[in-house]
Amino acid sequence: MTREELFEEIKKKRSFLCVGLDTDIDKVPSHLLKEEDPVFEFNKQIIDATKDLCIAYKPNIAFYECRGVVGWESLRKTLEYIPKEIFTIADAKRGDIGNTSLMYARTFFQPESSGLDFDSVTVAPYMGIDSVAPFLGFEGKWAIVLALTSNEGNKDFQYLETEDDFLFEKVITTSREWAGPDRLMYVVGATQPDAFADVRKLAPDHFLLVPGIGAQGGNLSEIAECGLNGQCGLIVNSSRGIIYASGAEDFADKARMQAKKLQEEMQHLLEKM
Amino acid sequence: MTREELFEEIKKKRSFLCVGLDTDIDKVPSHLLKEEDPVFEFNKQIIDATKDLCIAYKPNIAFYECRGVVGWESLRKTLEYIPKEIFTIADAKRGDIGNTSLMYARTFFQPESSGLDFDSVTVAPYMGIDSVAPFLGFEGKWAIVLALTSNEGNKDFQYLETEDDFLFEKVITTSREWAGPDRLMYVVGATQPDAFADVRKLAPDHFLLVPGIGAQGGNLSEIAECGLNGQCGLIVNSSRGIIYASGAEDFADKARMQAKKLQEEMQHLLEKM
Repeated sequence: MTREELFEEIKKKRSFLCVGLDTDIDKVPSHLLKEEDPVFEFNKQIIDATKDLCIAYKPNIAFYECRGVVGWESLRKTLEYIPKEIFTIADAKRGDIGNTSLMYARTFFQPESSGLDFDSVTVAPYMGIDSVAPFLGFEGKWAIVLALTSNEGNKDFQYLETEDDFLFEKVITTSREWAGPDRLMYVVGATQPDAFADVRKLAPDHFLLVPGIGAQGGNLSEIAECGLNGQCGLIVNSSRGIIYASGAEDFADKARMQAKKLQEEMQHLLEKM
Repeated sequence: MTREELFEEIKKKRSFLCVGLDTDIDKVPSHLLKEEDPVFEFNKQIIDATKDLCIAYKPNIAFYECRGVVGWESLRKTLEYIPKEIFTIADAKRGDIGNTSLMYARTFFQPESSGLDFDSVTVAPYMGIDSVAPFLGFEGKWAIVLALTSNEGNKDFQYLETEDDFLFEKVITTSREWAGPDRLMYVVGATQPDAFADVRKLAPDHFLLVPGIGAQGGNLSEIAECGLNGQCGLIVNSSRGIIYASGAEDFADKARMQAKKLQEEMQHLLEKM
């Protein structure tokens, strides 16, 4: 998917919401457990309930691979079920030496290899250019590099001071030379609004994938204020706040209500642009 | 597996060799392609040919997951086939926020969840303590944190200067507080012998997993000289140099010859200790 296509979808839906499909079998409502593939059935109903409100879905791969072959199959079916105009993110945080990163790129971008055909994958930067470059060689596909994550542990290394930058800033200034904003995005957590503004200065044109609103405490309007650019430039994710809004039979309706609330807030923020 | 058990195996076999099972279906000798699972058949013959010479096997997960369900199944069968006294490393370079890292830990450490039961997993440090901690909570299991990798891209971030350390040194000094050398190892590439000596000072008692000899150019005796400690403390990996020593029907014999050469060199180095 191109940047223009993504922006079109944002304008059409008046939303920059990503729904995180971090589907934990232990949290799937009990009435679904009799289904052949409860995780897929859960995702299917979440997708049906939210697909007109969001512009991206982001399955976190950990929740699928922890179930081995069964989980991998749920992931494949889920991805296949997502309408083609919606941007898909494999939240996998992969990265290895060059020849190995190429295998990871094939995992998520080459359906004839793995059965999966994501639009993008999240990538860990620690191993540097040759760990990221293989993800940049696929037409219409994106690498989303971890810059500043939303968790507590971001303090351990991402805020280390190097010459005149924090490490997370250095990750951006270095990696933005590897590919333009048509191939590369950054993960920037919503939990640190001040740092968010600094990131936007370093990457004015890039889309930023923003985790951390909802369960992790980030604030949407603060993020929009410093993060929106001429093509929106934000994909804001909510996982637990939407998909686990209810643990009962009404989970899809409740998920829709939460997604709708965010979409309306986003519409309002986009209109102010 | 405990540190003592690993050291016993090293003494018994007079080897600290790890064989990297980075099995690329495109490089499997053609006579195996008629098998139901050519990757597993290849691994099985490599294991049969090397299991008395090595103390660890390290499948790189990228090579399996890029084939989807089929690859995952080859991995499960391969792991099951490895004799229990041999240390197993899931080279996965995972890491995510706490609740998600726990899912990755279950993937590799909890057979009732995923079908896999590795002794250890490689972990990327960028996201800090809560991304690594979940891997440290499993009895007898290990996290192997990326410190200094063997690839070219290590220059991009790992050598950044922070206060008085390079980033890779800071990763060690910070993370060695998270767990002792009974739970934590470090990945330290063989391609930078000077840095290797510095790492050993910061982590005198830890096992170091060392990629980068062979195809990537690292030198075994240089590494041994600065890296061996009282319990050996080294697990040196060779992947391509062993498993692709021949691309023909004699691949397993040739793999054994390469492994034997390294084991004999290691025996010599251990005797000098």
